[in-house]
Amino acid sequence: MAEVLSSLRSLMAAHSPPLDALVVPSEDYHQSEYVSARDKRREFVSGFTGSAGLALITKDEARLWTDGRYFLQAEQQLSDEWTLMRMAEDPAVDVWMAENLPEEAAVGVNPWCISADTARRWKSAFSKKHQKLVPTATDLVDEIWKNRPADEANPVVVQPLEFTGRSVAEKLYDLRGKLKASNARGIIITTLDQVAWLYNIRGSDVPYCPVVHAFALVTLQSAFLYVDRRKVSSEVNSYMDENAIEVRDYTAVSSDVALLASGQLDSVSTINQKPKAETVGNGTTEAEGPGVDLVWVDASSCSYALYSKLNLAKVVQQQSPLALAKALKNPVELDGLRKAHIRDGAAVVQYLVWLDKQMQDMYGASGYFLEGEADKKKKDLRTTKLTEVTVSDKLESFRASKEACSTNYFSKEHFRGLSFPTISSVGPNAAIIHYGPQPETCAEVDPDKIYLFDSGAQYLDGTTDITRTVHFGVPSTHEKACYTAVLKGHIGLGNARFPNGTNGHALDILARIPLWKSGLDYRHGTGHGIGSFLFVHEGPHQISFRPSARNVPIQASMTVTDEPGYYEDGNFGIRLENVLVVNEADTKFNFGDKGYLEFEHITWAPYQRKLIDVSLLVPEEIEWLNTYHSKCKQILAPYLNENERSWLSKATEPVSVA
Amino acid sequence: MAEVLSSLRSLMAAHSPPLDALVVPSEDYHQSEYVSARDKRREFVSGFTGSAGLALITKDEARLWTDGRYFLQAEQQLSDEWTLMRMAEDPAVDVWMAENLPEEAAVGVNPWCISADTARRWKSAFSKKHQKLVPTATDLVDEIWKNRPADEANPVVVQPLEFTGRSVAEKLYDLRGKLKASNARGIIITTLDQVAWLYNIRGSDVPYCPVVHAFALVTLQSAFLYVDRRKVSSEVNSYMDENAIEVRDYTAVSSDVALLASGQLDSVSTINQKPKAETVGNGTTEAEGPGVDLVWVDASSCSYALYSKLNLAKVVQQQSPLALAKALKNPVELDGLRKAHIRDGAAVVQYLVWLDKQMQDMYGASGYFLEGEADKKKKDLRTTKLTEVTVSDKLESFRASKEACSTNYFSKEHFRGLSFPTISSVGPNAAIIHYGPQPETCAEVDPDKIYLFDSGAQYLDGTTDITRTVHFGVPSTHEKACYTAVLKGHIGLGNARFPNGTNGHALDILARIPLWKSGLDYRHGTGHGIGSFLFVHEGPHQISFRPSARNVPIQASMTVTDEPGYYEDGNFGIRLENVLVVNEADTKFNFGDKGYLEFEHITWAPYQRKLIDVSLLVPEEIEWLNTYHSKCKQILAPYLNENERSWLSKATEPVSVA
Repeated sequence: MAEVLSSLRSLMAAHSPPLDALVVPSEDYHQSEYVSARDKRREFVSGFTGSAGLALITKDEARLWTDGRYFLQAEQQLSDEWTLMRMAEDPAVDVWMAENLPEEAAVGVNPWCISADTARRWKSAFSKKHQKLVPTATDLVDEIWKNRPADEANPVVVQPLEFTGRSVAEKLYDLRGKLKASNARGIIITTLDQVAWLYNIRGSDVPYCPVVHAFALVTLQSAFLYVDRRKVSSEVNSYMDENAIEVRDYTAVSSDVALLASGQLDSVSTINQKPKAETVGNGTTEAEGPGVDLVWVDASSCSYALYSKLNLAKVVQQQSPLALAKALKNPVELDGLRKAHIRDGAAVVQYLVWLDKQMQDMYGASGYFLEGEADKKKKDLRTTKLTEVTVSDKLESFRASKEACSTNYFSKEHFRGLSFPTISSVGPNAAIIHYGPQPETCAEVDPDKIYLFDSGAQYLDGTTDITRTVHFGVPSTHEKACYTAVLKGHIGLGNARFPNGTNGHALDILARIPLWKSGLDYRHGTGHGIGSFLFVHEGPHQISFRPSARNVPIQASMTVTDEPGYYEDGNFGIRLENVLVVNEADTKFNFGDKGYLEFEHITWAPYQRKLIDVSLLVPEEIEWLNTYHSKCKQILAPYLNENERSWLSKATEPVSVA
Repeated sequence: MAEVLSSLRSLMAAHSPPLDALVVPSEDYHQSEYVSARDKRREFVSGFTGSAGLALITKDEARLWTDGRYFLQAEQQLSDEWTLMRMAEDPAVDVWMAENLPEEAAVGVNPWCISADTARRWKSAFSKKHQKLVPTATDLVDEIWKNRPADEANPVVVQPLEFTGRSVAEKLYDLRGKLKASNARGIIITTLDQVAWLYNIRGSDVPYCPVVHAFALVTLQSAFLYVDRRKVSSEVNSYMDENAIEVRDYTAVSSDVALLASGQLDSVSTINQKPKAETVGNGTTEAEGPGVDLVWVDASSCSYALYSKLNLAKVVQQQSPLALAKALKNPVELDGLRKAHIRDGAAVVQYLVWLDKQMQDMYGASGYFLEGEADKKKKDLRTTKLTEVTVSDKLESFRASKEACSTNYFSKEHFRGLSFPTISSVGPNAAIIHYGPQPETCAEVDPDKIYLFDSGAQYLDGTTDITRTVHFGVPSTHEKACYTAVLKGHIGLGNARFPNGTNGHALDILARIPLWKSGLDYRHGTGHGIGSFLFVHEGPHQISFRPSARNVPIQASMTVTDEPGYYEDGNFGIRLENVLVVNEADTKFNFGDKGYLEFEHITWAPYQRKLIDVSLLVPEEIEWLNTYHSKCKQILAPYLNENERSWLSKATEPVSVA
């Protein structure tokens, strides 16, 4: 690690101008949450493997900023050369740089790896001491990274209409309508899921995310895809031709953005046909009229590098219209999501049945249903160990290798890997919200402790995300009270009705009120959107106490998770998570003609009755629970064998107040 | 009315520069919600008597903007010369002026009657067409208002420490601490309740509001009160001297603000002693140090006239620190508020007992407790009528002329009038949220219709505000369902616990969720602060869906109302309102060391059991209701005669699920 830093410092000194500091962010050229191995530059320089963080190297210091989810992990992974900066406790990176770097300091950064918004914020902080942000022409980390993983040419695949529900032509037609309404001649699309969604393509360039490293530029006349051409087969090339999408080199995006800004991009198109979009809908695409000369750019996700190519007097700076368009799922996508969640739920139940048996056989646990002390002798006799990692591998295998009970239902090939690294956590580890168990260091399962798993998968017809918390021995009264409070919040939100226009900031409290009664809470948001075979975390809406949750109302046909929790440091953690679809509610009245909305749960797996203190539930909650369980049993039955069905029947028996 | 407009237009033409338009706002020189008769300029020119609205007179048009509470009333009251502009439906006044007035138009306004924020917003709207805002030297309306009510010299009275709980010296000491922390040498205090609160004085210049028309300026050294000197008796003068408050003419505030801006105000002080504040607490007031040269001004309430005297390079533009200081009640104020609400609750119960008897005797109603058809014969035989106005007068008389059952409890002289015009409304009128019954036109009570009253009083020890909704005949199933949903929301909010830092925007949804279940809602906020013998509507916090409810967290020792409702146009209205005190909650846990809060209900009057569909309540709600009713009976008993006590016993019998 010391070598890395000294090599970097040599490059910083040799740079023109010489750099007083170098910033190494976590993000790739598309501001992604998950990045490919070759884009893990911050991990390479710092040794810290968490998903979020930023490294700063000065002549004599090295500091790493990360958030509360990762303080413990960063402390363990950072070597002595590094100082950990705790976000929300220590000064933010721009504040720290402005205060601690010298007057007129030069701060280098790869301008592709930070957003235009970030660059603007930093420059503003730098102005007081005449410091400057220096975009480096190459990435200094890449220059010294000897064994940097190769850029593999993973193929681009077309996501068929049977799963997308809308053609590229329709999507382009809608997009161009929004561009024209904003006097924009074109738009820069930089986030990987927006490119994939717009062109109905998928890939495998980033773990957990079925996307391709690519940009898109769309004008009123033309559409462009910037991608490593090795990834585009002749079939996919034909598909692009059919859809009037011009395929260009990944690296050409930079000069093409400059052409877009000057109104000359259409001239580079070799596709001589009119865009198909014209044949869709009730109008034709008009040529740019007078005044239609702006470029739409989302500065929160567009890199500083691309943004710098624009004429800032001629931009529409707004959230990309694709963010909301992608979040509003069409009926085909919703149907796919429902089906994917049923298969996923069946895998989860099979996993629970398997785990229940292992806990009893290997650890002498009383098991999922009974509350009894573990048989210590059995535990002592076991020859192999089950760990957080080995059991989570088993969960993945249930998703991957599922055999259909009835071939009408199952389609093994729809599974395309996990949607994020599984959180599989025993006892105190469950209190670490973004816990990522490592094979060498992870904990063993334990019949005396709570076990929490939060996992999801990618299926061709939808992305899933589910959390359940279970106990195979004797949960304490306190654990039951906490589980029940979390369940009450989960039901309170999931069972709510609300008028159109309500945002996720207003709804967030519904999941917390039962916890607040006892002075409990959780330090994370309550819900995020989920993609249709895309990112597991999808905006622009969210359910959270964070101010950004006010930006977009929750709307019909959105997906959103419902995942309250409670975490007791050093002790245990509880979280329950379902994916919900937002539907119009058939309310008795419609005050204010606003229209009311409600949630449909599409995740299917039982809550553990043993962990529920039924006396704390109100009749409405009991009714909801029993109805959900009854549907769960009915919906999953065709996907389970007899033993599993019988287990699920027991797990979903109705509860009632004694 | 035509004369008024033509006289005004003559003055507008004769003005230098000639005015293309004249704005006549509702507010007085202190941006008050309620104003004195001589300040009702907008009412005088337009004939519209609602509490909120703005008149605009151009050469050939007259338009009145008001909000949804008043559309119906304004339609009835405005003559043909006027056009009603519906706020939230029609363009806002600044937008309308900017679009419809000519290029370079001159728009006159009395600069004392609009806030600096409003002036800034208008000027910005005017810039496009080079229109200008012209502050008139005199109020043109006053010039033509022949019978304008006289400026009466209502006496200033001192509010004793037994009710305020904090001395002027302590309040000035705290205020000066906040000024110094912001590098401010002084502050402009323009709202009437802040002046009254700071100096512990009260008056009777404005109906429903025990305040004096006065300004205050406070520097680190001196304190000034600007008031009509005729209002200040020699005793009050001595009190001012003792507290080192310099009394100056009301009109001197204008030039004194200019002196404050230039740092010369202290020199006009004739009080040669150091302010008493210096002797309080653990430090002494320091003289202005270097850099302490700003003036604190709250541009949302400071008039454009006073604001214009400031050097804008040297101001702290923030909410007045007195807004929050006043909202955080001290133990003496809380004690007074609790006592005032008990006396007030007793008056409300006496009123209900009286009304119940009248409804049975005069209208043949089955009464408060029974659900039976009214005896039509009795109704036809009645010789006098009870109207919305006559019954509300009776309610006032119960508050005013109360005789103590035990002289230990009662103190008739604490009553100081109503805190706002009583809303007393039968059937469809109850659906008009800010209904103000007029003696000539108001409705008669009706045993077949819902009756809603929302009223409050001023007592020396506290201000009250309560709403109850009752039925003396047979309520419909729908009315019961709606009443129960409103009650569930009322309990849901009032019974909540939440961590410090939670604002009233987040809490608002708790009162709506039970209504939303059936697609019901209400178009007003859920709660406002209430004063200690001051304004019935007090900020800076509120519980509301409005963005401003995010500005200030709900904090321990605040007061806030809990008043959800449901209104069905042309049919009926329901609202239930209690005043709550925010207390620290003794939660079992204290996650995040944030500290948790809860509400204490201090309003005492029964909910009508006949209107509650108990089957819709959950056990927690039933328990809350029965506990509240039991306390209500116990707390009010000493203030009631035997007949009233027996009625209350029956009204507060526990409910249970059949």
